[in-house]
Amino acid sequence: MRIVVLAGGIGGARFLRGLKRAVPDADITVIGNTGDDIHLFGLKVCPDLDTVMYTLGGGIDEEQGWGRSDETFHLKEELAAYGVGPDWFGLGDRDFATHIVRTQMLGAGFPLSAVTEALCDRWQPGVRLIPMTDDRVETHVAVELDGERKAVHFQEYWVRLRASVPAQAVVPVGAEQAKPAPGVLEAIGEADVILFPPSNPVVSVGTILAVPGIREAIADAGVPVVGLSPIVGDAPVRGMADKVLAAVGVESTAAAVAEHYGSGLLDGWLVDSVDAASVERVEAAGIRCLAVPLMMTDVDAAARMAREALALAEEVRTA
Amino acid sequence: MRIVVLAGGIGGARFLRGLKRAVPDADITVIGNTGDDIHLFGLKVCPDLDTVMYTLGGGIDEEQGWGRSDETFHLKEELAAYGVGPDWFGLGDRDFATHIVRTQMLGAGFPLSAVTEALCDRWQPGVRLIPMTDDRVETHVAVELDGERKAVHFQEYWVRLRASVPAQAVVPVGAEQAKPAPGVLEAIGEADVILFPPSNPVVSVGTILAVPGIREAIADAGVPVVGLSPIVGDAPVRGMADKVLAAVGVESTAAAVAEHYGSGLLDGWLVDSVDAASVERVEAAGIRCLAVPLMMTDVDAAARMAREALALAEEVRTA
Repeated sequence: MRIVVLAGGIGGARFLRGLKRAVPDADITVIGNTGDDIHLFGLKVCPDLDTVMYTLGGGIDEEQGWGRSDETFHLKEELAAYGVGPDWFGLGDRDFATHIVRTQMLGAGFPLSAVTEALCDRWQPGVRLIPMTDDRVETHVAVELDGERKAVHFQEYWVRLRASVPAQAVVPVGAEQAKPAPGVLEAIGEADVILFPPSNPVVSVGTILAVPGIREAIADAGVPVVGLSPIVGDAPVRGMADKVLAAVGVESTAAAVAEHYGSGLLDGWLVDSVDAASVERVEAAGIRCLAVPLMMTDVDAAARMAREALALAEEVRTA
Repeated sequence: MRIVVLAGGIGGARFLRGLKRAVPDADITVIGNTGDDIHLFGLKVCPDLDTVMYTLGGGIDEEQGWGRSDETFHLKEELAAYGVGPDWFGLGDRDFATHIVRTQMLGAGFPLSAVTEALCDRWQPGVRLIPMTDDRVETHVAVELDGERKAVHFQEYWVRLRASVPAQAVVPVGAEQAKPAPGVLEAIGEADVILFPPSNPVVSVGTILAVPGIREAIADAGVPVVGLSPIVGDAPVRGMADKVLAAVGVESTAAAVAEHYGSGLLDGWLVDSVDAASVERVEAAGIRCLAVPLMMTDVDAAARMAREALALAEEVRTA
C-alpha cells in the first residue's frame, strides 16, 4: 500500500510513528511543510522536516516533541554572550549539526529535496520524506504590534510572541511561485491513500496545499483522502491552531476544519469522540465522518488512529 | 608605553598574558597570524586570533591551551554521525559560536579586522587585536604523501598529520597579494617597542612578516625589536616548530632562529638559560642576546619573561 501523508511538525510526526506501527510494510511518502523554515545565524533551519526526521529516526526529544534528545545548549549560550540573536529560538548543540550540514549542501548547490534525502540517510526514518518544494516559501503572519501593523515570520509569531496577539492574516510568501519538489506530484499520483494527519490546517497542511499543483493533484488523484482533526472539543490538541484559524475566518471546531478543506479535497474525516455531535455537520458537507479517540497519548494510540483513518479510507473507496 | 606584538597561537597568547601582568598600563597592539585560518563546515575559523582572544579574555581551555573552557563536543559528534568531515579538527560547541558569528559578519560584508574587534567587544582581551590582513592568506605545506607530492593546508599538516611527514616547503598562499589590515602599519609606526613572542618563527611570526609592508615597517620603525626564542635546548618548547624550520633550511636552535630573523629586523634576542652557550653566536650576528629562563610554566613566569624582553629593549634603545 502506497500512502502519502502531508505533514507539519509534532502532530504529523507522531501520527506518522503510529502509521508506521499500524502498517509496517506500507510505502509511505511524507510531503513536509517548509513554510516554517527560517534562516538563523546564517543557517537554514527546517523545523518541520527535522521534527519528522528526528521523531521517526529515534533522535527526538520525546518530552517537548521537537529538537534532539540528550541535547545541550552551549552554542546558544555563547551566541547570547556575543549579543547575537535571536535568542528565542531553541537551537541545541546537536541540532545545530543538522543545520550546518544542510546549509553546506545547499551552498554547494544541492536542492533541499536532495539535502533532505542525504540527512535521512543517517536517520533512516522508514518513510520517504520530501519537502513540499525546493523553492523558498516563508509563512508570514500579519499582526498589530505596538500599534503598528506588521508582518512577522511565522516562527517569530509562534515562538517569540507565542501567538499572544491576534493573527490578522497568514501568508505563505513565495508559495504562488513555488513548484512542488521532485517526487511530490508523482507520489500523489501513485498513492493508494492520502492522509492529512492532525497537523495545523492553516500553517502546516494549508501551506503545503498552497504550492500550486499539490491541491489539484490530491483532488484529482482518485483515491481516498482522509484527515484527522487537530481540534478536539473546540480547542487545538496542541499548539495554537485556533489563533491562525481565526485569521482565515475558520472557527476552531473539528467540523469547521473539515468544511475548510472541503469535500472537493476530503473524502473522510475523523473527529474525536468528544466531538461526536459534529459528525452530522461534516457529513452534511459531503465528507464521510467518524468519531473515534484522537489523543496521541503514545505510539499505540497513534497507531489506532492510523488504523481508523485507513479503515475510513477503505470505506469511502468502496462506497 | 606602546607595544606591538606579533603573535601566533598558544605561545603568543601566553606571553601576552604575562606581558599584560608585567606592564598593566601599556598600550598593547597584537598583530595576529591568520595563515592558520581555515574554512570548516562553511564557517571561517581563525585559530590563532581565537587563542589570543580566549586566553586574554579568560575563556581558554587552560590545559590544552586552545579552545574553550567548559567545552562540549556534541555538534562535532553529530557531524561525524552524518559522515561530514573533517573529523580531525577539534571544534567544540562553545567555540562554534565564535565561528558562526564571524562567518555571519563576514557574509554581511565586514572585513575580518572589524569582525575581530566585534568579537573582542565581548572578550575584552585588554589588548588591541588586529589580524595581520583582511585578505585571505592560507599557509600550505608541501609534503610527500603515499608517494605523491602534494600541498596540504597547514592545519591538515599540523593537526591531522601531526607533522609526522617532513615539510618540504611552507608557503603562505596569498600573502604576496595581501595588504596589512587597517591599523597594522600605524601601530608599528607608533610603537615604542616591538616584540616577537616565543611563537613559531615560520608559520606564525614568519607568516605575518610575509605580508608585504609589515617586515619593512618593523625594520624601519626605529624602535627596539626584541624576540624570545621558541626553541629551548634545540627543541621547540611546544608544538613542532622544528618540522617547519627544516622546510625553510633553518636548524632547530635558538641561535639559528635569531639568525633567520636577522639583525636587519631583530635588535635583541632572549634565549633560555640552557642555551647560554649560543649567546655569543647570536651577538656575532649583530643581535644583542641574553640567556634567561624561558619556560612559561605560569603567568608569573611569562610576566618575568616579558620584563626581561622589555629590559633588553631599553638596553638596545640606549646602546
